[in-house]
Amino acid sequence: MINEKYKEMLGKKSVIRQLSEFATQRGSEIGYENVFDYSLGNPSVPVPDAFTDEMIRLLKEESPMRLHGYSPTMGNPEYKQAVADSLNRRFNMNYKATHIFPTSGAAGAIAHALRAVTKPGDDVIVFAPFFPEYTPYITGTGANIKIVPPDTKAFQINFEKFNEMLDKNVKAVLINSPNNPTGIVYSEETVKRLSDILKEKSKEFGFDIYLVSDEPYREIVFDGVVCPYPAKYYDHTLTCYSFSKSISLPGERIGYVACNPSDPDSETIAMMCGQISRGTGHNCPASIIQMAVAKVLDMTSDLSVYETNMNILYKELTGLGFEVVKPGGTFYIFPKALEEDAVAFSQKALKYDLVLVPADSFGCPGYFRMAYCIDTEKVERSLPALRKFVETEYPDRRK
Amino acid sequence: MINEKYKEMLGKKSVIRQLSEFATQRGSEIGYENVFDYSLGNPSVPVPDAFTDEMIRLLKEESPMRLHGYSPTMGNPEYKQAVADSLNRRFNMNYKATHIFPTSGAAGAIAHALRAVTKPGDDVIVFAPFFPEYTPYITGTGANIKIVPPDTKAFQINFEKFNEMLDKNVKAVLINSPNNPTGIVYSEETVKRLSDILKEKSKEFGFDIYLVSDEPYREIVFDGVVCPYPAKYYDHTLTCYSFSKSISLPGERIGYVACNPSDPDSETIAMMCGQISRGTGHNCPASIIQMAVAKVLDMTSDLSVYETNMNILYKELTGLGFEVVKPGGTFYIFPKALEEDAVAFSQKALKYDLVLVPADSFGCPGYFRMAYCIDTEKVERSLPALRKFVETEYPDRRK
Repeated sequence: MINEKYKEMLGKKSVIRQLSEFATQRGSEIGYENVFDYSLGNPSVPVPDAFTDEMIRLLKEESPMRLHGYSPTMGNPEYKQAVADSLNRRFNMNYKATHIFPTSGAAGAIAHALRAVTKPGDDVIVFAPFFPEYTPYITGTGANIKIVPPDTKAFQINFEKFNEMLDKNVKAVLINSPNNPTGIVYSEETVKRLSDILKEKSKEFGFDIYLVSDEPYREIVFDGVVCPYPAKYYDHTLTCYSFSKSISLPGERIGYVACNPSDPDSETIAMMCGQISRGTGHNCPASIIQMAVAKVLDMTSDLSVYETNMNILYKELTGLGFEVVKPGGTFYIFPKALEEDAVAFSQKALKYDLVLVPADSFGCPGYFRMAYCIDTEKVERSLPALRKFVETEYPDRRK
Repeated sequence: MINEKYKEMLGKKSVIRQLSEFATQRGSEIGYENVFDYSLGNPSVPVPDAFTDEMIRLLKEESPMRLHGYSPTMGNPEYKQAVADSLNRRFNMNYKATHIFPTSGAAGAIAHALRAVTKPGDDVIVFAPFFPEYTPYITGTGANIKIVPPDTKAFQINFEKFNEMLDKNVKAVLINSPNNPTGIVYSEETVKRLSDILKEKSKEFGFDIYLVSDEPYREIVFDGVVCPYPAKYYDHTLTCYSFSKSISLPGERIGYVACNPSDPDSETIAMMCGQISRGTGHNCPASIIQMAVAKVLDMTSDLSVYETNMNILYKELTGLGFEVVKPGGTFYIFPKALEEDAVAFSQKALKYDLVLVPADSFGCPGYFRMAYCIDTEKVERSLPALRKFVETEYPDRRK
């Protein structure tokens, strides 16, 4: 008998996916270069050559049995050591290889971290707007998602509402900075205040609330912005990472959970992730990918294009009268739509071959997301379409 | 708060893993070439050169963004089509790409297939002896494992017990032929009889019982043995496969679920696997591995060494007085221990640097498994140790 829960999920098609399909379809009609597709967060800059070189070297020189043989259950030791060394150097931490659990991207990392620190029926807090896949990661463990409404002024944290909602049934808080979809980086003040509240409430409740910190955009931070490392501020932090963005490897599914050594349970949690993986199908990263990434993980792709694109779009959007908070990183920008219904707004934009994502599914109706991980030349070519769209459809917008 | 269920799993260390660690430790003392390590099922023959060549070609010629970009949620279309074509050609089936869901090895395949066709509280039947990881795959979904005792005469199916245990709470039956740990291939008679019972009981119960068929050893079949394809006999079969053994890629985590097109729900189930994957962390295979395997999946490594090794060991074991059913495939052999307690038996063998796995964790106490995926030269060098072990410890064994 088919499991009805998963069957029902089939009906709910992702808005992002539908828009992306529109873009592909429209591209086949007018040429994809003429569709201004701001829908998908697929990196637009290549992986560093050093990765490709190391892959080829491994394939040519390494014993195929070692190269393609089973990784240890807890992951490739060199990969884990390289991750620990890198985090220690950059954030002045004390990770050992035993604190690192390799996962299939940040998705795998979050799914494992949440299973380790919640049980079915617990609540997990997220802050709107948030990446829609957080819902299946959380509900997949049997926990419930609890959404704190957005701080639409600065897209930091709505602490008033957070304090109200943080009760004894909340076992974990899931954050994402630099943030998808807003592009905002949490300030040190925000991280400190969050940490203080978690410490205080943990003491009051008599158990440690875990902070699950999703950081795939950590390396994409713009001029003058500092991205605080949350585990530095709060001991019970599980850092979830993916090499999808920093070295443009989303399809190779490689990331990790880093368990903060300041938490006495950190090594236990890392080992529990290994046990959790057994039940979900041993979703460790491919062996050759672990080995190659271990050699290049302090590099990044040339990420400067994202800042260039952001500056062009930010200037244009504000010039056109959009309300928008300037992103501090990522490759997203998150303006307020020019009418209340962002879905209707995005539908109208399609007439101008502009593919914008309404933020309803991110828990923030009335806003839309643009993913500007595309060529700068295309961003520039999209500006006349953007102007025409806004001036035609919303001539009275500044009133 | 830490999830106690997963924490408790930490105490239970796998016997295979412990033995393998002994082998590594002992190897550091006397040289690993002198430890006769029959504990682990890691293939001992290299991947076909065509795979390595294709990987290098992709790395040199393909656009890095396409090569390393996100695969579609449902997997790489060329990989899926290549899998469907291959199964259709070899087993006279009618799979389309839409019936195939790519997974991280057979582990991922089984975990997804079971989640698709059971709900928490359902029972899943397995046949002893069985691969110990079946327990976390099944209990990880919230279902219960129900173990049919072994047919120790031929290691086919104990149909009498199966019939008794197959009640209305059983929603899926999990089989594995060629079998780990016995090396036995189910005969056509066995598969037909199993299929007939499932058809009859499905009718009686008013729902379709699913057959989840784990087939990573399908290509390792010895002279004169035919391995029937279960989906050919039973419509509601979900075939789970891994390229770990046939092309020696266990660490690259690539396999699939193939949903039988004769089942009207087959395409729905494949799509449900995509939804299930969202909750467990998007454990799809690495993009480059999907692309490269698509080009070589009708090849196999040179698997002949396994049959050579099996024949040497079978002759020696029977000569020494062991009760053992001759394997029809895989790289395992499964003799009866020379004392009732196979754990004690395997402990004694360690004194002779022979690493044998007692079958208690496979649900078949009193037997042991030898994984002979090692060099033939080493198999031959192990024979004097085997003889000395048996003759010293069990001089009266034939009485």
